[in-house]
Amino acid sequence: MVMETIRVNSERFLATFEALSAIGSTPGGGVHRPALSPAHLESRRWFLAQAERAGLEIRVDEAGNHSALLRCGPADGPTVLLGSHLDSVPYGGRFDGALGVAAALEVLQAVRERGLSLNAHLEAIDFTDEEGFFVGLLGSMALAGLLEPEHLRCPRGGEAGFRAALRRAGLVQERLSAASRDPASLLAYLELHIEQGLRLLDQGAQIGIVSSIVGIRSHRVRFLGRADHAGTTPMESRLDAALGASSFTLAARDLVMARFLGGVANVGHMAFDPGAFNVVPETVSVALEFRAGDADTLDDMEIALLEQASLEAGRFGLGLEIEPLDSVAPVLMHERLQRAFVCACDRLGLKHVSLPSGAGHDAMSMVHVCPTGMIFVPSVGGASHSSREFTAWDDCVNGANTLLHAALLLAQQGDA
Amino acid sequence: MVMETIRVNSERFLATFEALSAIGSTPGGGVHRPALSPAHLESRRWFLAQAERAGLEIRVDEAGNHSALLRCGPADGPTVLLGSHLDSVPYGGRFDGALGVAAALEVLQAVRERGLSLNAHLEAIDFTDEEGFFVGLLGSMALAGLLEPEHLRCPRGGEAGFRAALRRAGLVQERLSAASRDPASLLAYLELHIEQGLRLLDQGAQIGIVSSIVGIRSHRVRFLGRADHAGTTPMESRLDAALGASSFTLAARDLVMARFLGGVANVGHMAFDPGAFNVVPETVSVALEFRAGDADTLDDMEIALLEQASLEAGRFGLGLEIEPLDSVAPVLMHERLQRAFVCACDRLGLKHVSLPSGAGHDAMSMVHVCPTGMIFVPSVGGASHSSREFTAWDDCVNGANTLLHAALLLAQQGDA
Repeated sequence: MVMETIRVNSERFLATFEALSAIGSTPGGGVHRPALSPAHLESRRWFLAQAERAGLEIRVDEAGNHSALLRCGPADGPTVLLGSHLDSVPYGGRFDGALGVAAALEVLQAVRERGLSLNAHLEAIDFTDEEGFFVGLLGSMALAGLLEPEHLRCPRGGEAGFRAALRRAGLVQERLSAASRDPASLLAYLELHIEQGLRLLDQGAQIGIVSSIVGIRSHRVRFLGRADHAGTTPMESRLDAALGASSFTLAARDLVMARFLGGVANVGHMAFDPGAFNVVPETVSVALEFRAGDADTLDDMEIALLEQASLEAGRFGLGLEIEPLDSVAPVLMHERLQRAFVCACDRLGLKHVSLPSGAGHDAMSMVHVCPTGMIFVPSVGGASHSSREFTAWDDCVNGANTLLHAALLLAQQGDA
Repeated sequence: MVMETIRVNSERFLATFEALSAIGSTPGGGVHRPALSPAHLESRRWFLAQAERAGLEIRVDEAGNHSALLRCGPADGPTVLLGSHLDSVPYGGRFDGALGVAAALEVLQAVRERGLSLNAHLEAIDFTDEEGFFVGLLGSMALAGLLEPEHLRCPRGGEAGFRAALRRAGLVQERLSAASRDPASLLAYLELHIEQGLRLLDQGAQIGIVSSIVGIRSHRVRFLGRADHAGTTPMESRLDAALGASSFTLAARDLVMARFLGGVANVGHMAFDPGAFNVVPETVSVALEFRAGDADTLDDMEIALLEQASLEAGRFGLGLEIEPLDSVAPVLMHERLQRAFVCACDRLGLKHVSLPSGAGHDAMSMVHVCPTGMIFVPSVGGASHSSREFTAWDDCVNGANTLLHAALLLAQQGDA
């Protein structure tokens, strides 16, 4: 009966969330905590200190993943891992990632104060660089035993920046993969996250139970022209790399909207070289990312987008270089964990819907090592990766209680 | 008669030019000497040392302009100023600017070794930041008494970078305008430069006598959208600043080619904010520059381009901010100096044509303070602001001899 009535402590959960929101906070009400930045490292230290104060065991692994452990199962029992990430995109929002870590910590505290004895331990984890400031899903890939040297070959911020950041965090590149865990030690991975979309609010649902997560690929697409004097070179005889990059940016959007209804694409950055007012751009390097719910669509998008880039380069007499960066396959969430979330919602009287996730999450790594499940709470305005991110506190508490009850259902059974 | 037969020393001129080409040289055969960079400052020190070795008086003014003076006129006589600049665009060519400075120095050496007595002194000058790495034409504006605090308000490289560069060069921002000279002290300003275009080679001419110089304006055009998650925000509900910037880049080119035949425009840089793969760009700041031969056309282009920016912003639901930066008016070269160049070419048996300059030059400042004239020598392939810049050495020598004889014609007369 204690199992049915247990709830998270809303005030304590809020205090945790607000303390995290204050670290790296921006004037607009968001946070700026790029992975391994000083603000990010401060938020991780705060998390460990808070966990220690709450009487939990603390742990930092070789990939920098920070976690808090509640030993509430048999000595050699498996662990139900709950978590998300404390890093943010540059000038991002307070909720993305941090809400899931705060909720996981709160779940452990709620279980601990009831003194519950279960068939599995509970562990709250904060994964390293989920957002891919350097290498997307770095921490969860390492923990899941998926991290290969090729993932570390082209960190987004550049090799020197990545090495400096690792040093700052006390990490060693060659040791990152030693964070991998024995799959037998993990009963399940559960994550709470904001929806970053509008479907829950549109459908009046309180909890979204994630069915699958889209795959993501990114490329650096370089248009190669010729540097010329921008005053003396006639417009018609230029090889202007900006024209290829601009034309591709517009065409990529039209192409995805016309042919890939479920998919999305983004040109998030362009680097101009030499980048002066009075020089025709010689090279423009376009940061392209695209997503789709299944591998076949992702393959088709990649072919279509790269063909389009080649077409646009040709139109303006430019050369083209394609550098594939990250590639994350789409994944399905575990059936039994989706059912555990349904049970938890029913027990709590919450309206839930099943929906795919358009965003990538650490759950994409974890699915390779243990049964994995995820829930969403509503995002006002669908805002995300922005200081406008907002989720009503009642919705956050509903999410944490759903996470709590699903974790209890799994940890009571002792198998997923 | 000595006046008619005098020529520059081609070997010494070449040695000077090659020594300058080696300072800040790039693997591609160009030079990287942005204004006040260590390489630029090294080239200026080399210039002063060389002038001193040649027995010339050396001088550095409050704007950092470096010059060498040959006292070949009466004690209180005016000066014929010959020069150009040693700074380059980032990763630019060897000839742009440096050829004119090397030629001016060689002219003084040729006159000095003949021991000629004239009605004016000769001075070879290297102006500060012609290319506008911080503030275009900074040195010549200061010397011409045109430098106002407003010119220094928004240096292109940012205020902190500008202040650091001034410190590096031993200059003080508040003292720059003290470099201004008494107009009565200047008889004329003459500049030799590469054409940076193809007209001389197309017409089989050895010397281009410049009739006028185009006006240049630059703006920072900011498209303001909304940062959103690039995975969860549907394509159709984004406010993507990259779309406005891209669309404007393409439209600006079409507009100028269709409506302003003599004009040119360039988008030389875009800055993305926040600039991540997985965030829809909130702000894209476009570096726009455009040029035309007369002020009315320049006004019309400005109106048309900014209207186009507004139109493109509107098409994608974006805000727009326009920040005007540099504005340099088009100018006519002095009639009598053009005639002096014609006389010099005829004396030397060189084929010459009259042509406008599509590029800005320090002559644009100097026209406000004394009679000003300019000549071009042919550019192979019309290459400019690029390591591909090349001018045959015979053409360089022809240019230096034309500069020498025009300077002698003016300095003999003692008035322009």
